[in-house]
Amino acid sequence: MSKSYSLKPKKSDRFSFGLWTIMNVGRDPFGEATRPPINPLDVIVELAKRNVYSFEMHAEDLVPMGSSTRERDRLVREAKKRMKDYRIKCTNCGSNCFSHPVFKDGALTSNDPDVRAFAVQRYIYAIDMGYELGCRLCNLWWGRDGLEVEGSKDAREALKWLRECCNLLTEYVLRNYPDYELSIEAKPNEPRGDIFLPTTGHALGFIATLDHPEKWGVVPELAHVRMAGLNSVHEVAQALDAGKLSGIHLNSQKPLRYDQDIRFGTEDLKESFFVVYLLETSDYRGTKSFDCHPHRTEDRQGAWDFVAGNMRTYLLLKEKVKEYQQDTQIQRILTRIRGAQKCLPAPEEIASAKFDLDKLMASRLPYEKLDQMIIELLLGAR
Amino acid sequence: MSKSYSLKPKKSDRFSFGLWTIMNVGRDPFGEATRPPINPLDVIVELAKRNVYSFEMHAEDLVPMGSSTRERDRLVREAKKRMKDYRIKCTNCGSNCFSHPVFKDGALTSNDPDVRAFAVQRYIYAIDMGYELGCRLCNLWWGRDGLEVEGSKDAREALKWLRECCNLLTEYVLRNYPDYELSIEAKPNEPRGDIFLPTTGHALGFIATLDHPEKWGVVPELAHVRMAGLNSVHEVAQALDAGKLSGIHLNSQKPLRYDQDIRFGTEDLKESFFVVYLLETSDYRGTKSFDCHPHRTEDRQGAWDFVAGNMRTYLLLKEKVKEYQQDTQIQRILTRIRGAQKCLPAPEEIASAKFDLDKLMASRLPYEKLDQMIIELLLGAR
Amino acid sequence: MSKSYSLKPKKSDRFSFGLWTIMNVGRDPFGEATRPPINPLDVIVELAKRNVYSFEMHAEDLVPMGSSTRERDRLVREAKKRMKDYRIKCTNCGSNCFSHPVFKDGALTSNDPDVRAFAVQRYIYAIDMGYELGCRLCNLWWGRDGLEVEGSKDAREALKWLRECCNLLTEYVLRNYPDYELSIEAKPNEPRGDIFLPTTGHALGFIATLDHPEKWGVVPELAHVRMAGLNSVHEVAQALDAGKLSGIHLNSQKPLRYDQDIRFGTEDLKESFFVVYLLETSDYRGTKSFDCHPHRTEDRQGAWDFVAGNMRTYLLLKEKVKEYQQDTQIQRILTRIRGAQKCLPAPEEIASAKFDLDKLMASRLPYEKLDQMIIELLLGAR
Amino acid sequence: MSKSYSLKPKKSDRFSFGLWTIMNVGRDPFGEATRPPINPLDVIVELAKRNVYSFEMHAEDLVPMGSSTRERDRLVREAKKRMKDYRIKCTNCGSNCFSHPVFKDGALTSNDPDVRAFAVQRYIYAIDMGYELGCRLCNLWWGRDGLEVEGSKDAREALKWLRECCNLLTEYVLRNYPDYELSIEAKPNEPRGDIFLPTTGHALGFIATLDHPEKWGVVPELAHVRMAGLNSVHEVAQALDAGKLSGIHLNSQKPLRYDQDIRFGTEDLKESFFVVYLLETSDYRGTKSFDCHPHRTEDRQGAWDFVAGNMRTYLLLKEKVKEYQQDTQIQRILTRIRGAQKCLPAPEEIASAKFDLDKLMASRLPYEKLDQMIIELLLGAR
Repeated sequence: MSKSYSLKPKKSDRFSFGLWTIMNVGRDPFGEATRPPINPLDVIVELAKRNVYSFEMHAEDLVPMGSSTRERDRLVREAKKRMKDYRIKCTNCGSNCFSHPVFKDGALTSNDPDVRAFAVQRYIYAIDMGYELGCRLCNLWWGRDGLEVEGSKDAREALKWLRECCNLLTEYVLRNYPDYELSIEAKPNEPRGDIFLPTTGHALGFIATLDHPEKWGVVPELAHVRMAGLNSVHEVAQALDAGKLSGIHLNSQKPLRYDQDIRFGTEDLKESFFVVYLLETSDYRGTKSFDCHPHRTEDRQGAWDFVAGNMRTYLLLKEKVKEYQQDTQIQRILTRIRGAQKCLPAPEEIASAKFDLDKLMASRLPYEKLDQMIIELLLGAR
Repeated sequence: MSKSYSLKPKKSDRFSFGLWTIMNVGRDPFGEATRPPINPLDVIVELAKRNVYSFEMHAEDLVPMGSSTRERDRLVREAKKRMKDYRIKCTNCGSNCFSHPVFKDGALTSNDPDVRAFAVQRYIYAIDMGYELGCRLCNLWWGRDGLEVEGSKDAREALKWLRECCNLLTEYVLRNYPDYELSIEAKPNEPRGDIFLPTTGHALGFIATLDHPEKWGVVPELAHVRMAGLNSVHEVAQALDAGKLSGIHLNSQKPLRYDQDIRFGTEDLKESFFVVYLLETSDYRGTKSFDCHPHRTEDRQGAWDFVAGNMRTYLLLKEKVKEYQQDTQIQRILTRIRGAQKCLPAPEEIASAKFDLDKLMASRLPYEKLDQMIIELLLGAR
Repeated sequence: MSKSYSLKPKKSDRFSFGLWTIMNVGRDPFGEATRPPINPLDVIVELAKRNVYSFEMHAEDLVPMGSSTRERDRLVREAKKRMKDYRIKCTNCGSNCFSHPVFKDGALTSNDPDVRAFAVQRYIYAIDMGYELGCRLCNLWWGRDGLEVEGSKDAREALKWLRECCNLLTEYVLRNYPDYELSIEAKPNEPRGDIFLPTTGHALGFIATLDHPEKWGVVPELAHVRMAGLNSVHEVAQALDAGKLSGIHLNSQKPLRYDQDIRFGTEDLKESFFVVYLLETSDYRGTKSFDCHPHRTEDRQGAWDFVAGNMRTYLLLKEKVKEYQQDTQIQRILTRIRGAQKCLPAPEEIASAKFDLDKLMASRLPYEKLDQMIIELLLGAR
Repeated sequence: MSKSYSLKPKKSDRFSFGLWTIMNVGRDPFGEATRPPINPLDVIVELAKRNVYSFEMHAEDLVPMGSSTRERDRLVREAKKRMKDYRIKCTNCGSNCFSHPVFKDGALTSNDPDVRAFAVQRYIYAIDMGYELGCRLCNLWWGRDGLEVEGSKDAREALKWLRECCNLLTEYVLRNYPDYELSIEAKPNEPRGDIFLPTTGHALGFIATLDHPEKWGVVPELAHVRMAGLNSVHEVAQALDAGKLSGIHLNSQKPLRYDQDIRFGTEDLKESFFVVYLLETSDYRGTKSFDCHPHRTEDRQGAWDFVAGNMRTYLLLKEKVKEYQQDTQIQRILTRIRGAQKCLPAPEEIASAKFDLDKLMASRLPYEKLDQMIIELLLGAR
């Protein structure tokens, strides 16, 4: 007989899904679509019915590129109606500047300045639309801003172009919607051989070079971190440490292979647990957003199993966080190894201090025991 | 309140540890030893006290290279005494042909035929010693048989040398100990840039070219599989399918980085679960052997926490296997998706058959639901 | 002023391209096609005009699934006419059992036996068509025979199904076209999370379990090897050593990321050089086939630049192989380090031999010098 | 007959080697030392004789931990004498806070505040020594500041500790040697499971949170970049773009495996070429420093082959950079694809602009052709 956990999502859990995650039809480089298309308005309603707090979108998910202003207005109106009727928010509206062939060599770092300008226009379009939908965040995942042929771009120039574009968008936002935020979602590669600003760390470093770093945050995507073989807990921690965690894209992935974007938690239970630990023990107030898609083997019904599964796993790991905090043996070890969190003295004092290395080495670091307890806690055996 | 599982190891669990795993002193390329050495005879006793079924060893773990025959005989006698007194077996005795500088460019594939002959001599020495200790398996992990400079060896020649050596060892065994088995443990890289026969698959392919393939098996090491970014469940399954699983080296590892050799289960709970599933639902009768070492941060006491943890996690996952088999919802899905396991008709019949693709595509594949159930089962929430 | 190399392809170079490589329209998971479709018949002609020796194909590249027998016959006739008129052969005809949604969960290892039977039918269809086109090899790259959800298939069963299908195809071929060969092209992942038989090594191991191993070979694809982070030179060498190199798929790839399939040589000059070295210094008589596609940024004209580039790089590396063989300094080092290639004595003799380790360690291994010479040879500076 | 390049290093090339690179004795996790130790003072002299501009060091390379002040002073005096006599500089003096067991759980992020203080003391010691040797840079590669057991440290706390320590060091430097610079050398893993600030990007992001970001730069190490599977050209470019390239550690590595630290250029000729291109076409004025070590198969003499090889490859690639700049066909393509580097207009203007997508898509991007020319240029065939 197992423990009984409450795994029903509530609005206060602040869960979110990208519209694109459900709209995904299962096409991949080696095969055709396996699911019929679904209308974004229906996705909004269905998510709301499942107590999802908000959705994220690219402007183009709702309003296809090339739509007339009239069509755009109608669709936005329809979306707003559903959002009101079914009580669901929009918490991020970016732009898809990667699907259309005009962006085949990138958007904000295309060698062609007109393509770069067009991409800026698309982001402005998305910001305007997002604002209208009550959204206050435009997250940029640029998708194709990178290269396969090293000679085709000079990365120094590309970073300058990127900065120019980001500064233009900041200017637009500051002038029109001062409470709007911008963020960068990094990815190492795919669909380009190498993408510029491959990790959240690179994005944080780049943001420091912008005109208004305070307007920019980051949205780490767990699977993107794992595509670079890095530690997603540390990635989120650094964003928190820098005060720049604008959002989070939860999902899973076997490391260092093609972009799998699978259901949260499936490939990395311990790592996922510690990500939830960070989110639940910090002052993070954004959404817990899922950015993944159902396996291509699923039909439309399976997509909703997938939605439920993502939220259940999060809630389950959140329960585990509570158990972790209440586990006296674990906490006793943590207290002992982390010790007194005192500040270090001035450098001059340190320079002349005497240290007893033997004593420093004498204290035990029972990390095997600690990790074993965590494994057993995760497996429900404590 | 958690489930109560019985996690105390029994002899019948057939757990095993390499002597080297406990003898590890925590030295790494960037730092000195952090633990004092420990006598192999003491390791044998301490393992036995913890209900470990057997140990594995390199001949050199017990008898350092260069020891006199007299010293060798004394140490073997001492080992046998402890094995008898404390009821523990030796189930694999290989040779360390990688630590001594004479093997700096490999052993069985050294460019120097005298080094190759010396390595064969060491393996013969290990087989003789193993036989005396009641062991019937010599597992070859060659360690340095590879290269960094592609030009330095012709891989075709190296494979020929390897085959010559393996055939010589087979000949020796057939003539002297007909019931002795030989096996290959593959590893992709480290300590060499690229090691020959980098995976269990390559070893299986190579064995097919030997004079007596029936004398040879494989010992997959989970962490080595993950160092190549492959699926350790499938690696073990292929060895089972080929009837060649001579043993298994259980441990863990973050994929595609340096050889971490950490405690079983810590980085890959779901994958570890399915490995245990394979071992517990096949006719495998070998040992469940742990080949990893305590974190360098541990002291001598921590090494025994590590030993306990490995076995506890295995037993816990074995309990999960039972729950999986008894979970009616999971089993119902499995029965439905795996369907009737009928044989296919003759090719001529297939060639002229009519297939209704729409019908074939209509059946649901609820893999998201299945995987979610497995995740919840692992987390103790079913 | 540079060396003058003759880089014009000749029929005798036995170059080959997959029809699919040129038919690729640049669609990827994040974006639409960037190139218009091109007729396979035109591809055949254009390749022939460039002195390409042969083409490879999936039956479906020429005859879309669902075509009538009449349409099939017409297309095969048209292809044969062009092959004759423009002097180009077909040297491999496999089947595309991965694009159609019926294969979304695999073909030869689908959980559904009817899907498996349908896939066998498709391969028989391809073998018949290949035979008619004068081809004698059916290379199987199964694409989707793998999984993302470990619970969804038991890898042991999947391997049995795979063997059953392979044995059926062998039976068909033995009965109908005794001189036909079959081969396996391995890939570790993408489009499935993990694909069964992830490397050439695994394929060789699996072939040893078939009813007629002598009918089966392997076709290593360099980029697939690099997707597993392995050494492509060693992969090809093991296939040669086993007498099982049925073909080779030349291309390039940054290791351990999504399937890039880029122009031969672009990311791994030294490794590519040693692959060419193997092919040019062995008794391999198959084609040198390119299996990659132009960058998505290229238009139709760029696809022909890509074709030319692949062949030029091969020819250039072949010239380097000659220089390598004629470089007296390099050859002197090789002669010294590889020494006399004597056979080892009998095991009993080895067991009692005396080895002088100091002497064995005294000989220099000037691998840094050797590798530097090779680097300079590659860079045209010797 | 090959081109004649001048590959003799000159002082003005500003080449540098870490003392530790030559002092490396070839020990690894699986084997003993293969080379005898060498005195650091001799290394200084031998490097100088080979026209190396400077050396880098850890204070502990010259003065072992635990040495008396008198011994320290004697060794520093001896070093200065050789530096003067043989005309060689010291351009980076860091501290080895990773080899001694006291640092087994990290230095600046140890859970024990006394260990953190001791590490700060060691860096102060190194800065003092460096200053005395005429050096103006202290590069921090912390080695063990990371973890294997996620629960053992909270990454948020670890980053705070790291910042506290970095701020203390800045304070010390500002007060004592205002012209001294500090830098961070990032590494993703090994010897720890995951190291904090795993890439140059993360270091740049972290530096932005320090009290005096202007005092801190980065020293990208090419092999560390490749251990994360990232693009080393882009890593260096971002450091240049941020005005923070304090130094560079040149070497090579097969991606995503153990730390190989091999001779510059051996595994990644094209990538190495573009790194040289960046260094030679920017205003970078630091040293070109090699941080790698001879293969373990080399003896002491081979270590000097290795030194020569590193510099020769750099000089050769520098010649290729000149050829690239003078190649009219390549430059014509570059000019065409990179177009006019005009600034974008104001966001409002962009928002209302009309774009002709068909026109934007019509211009060719002949990247296959460009890359092929670069490959042929590298291979000496243009």
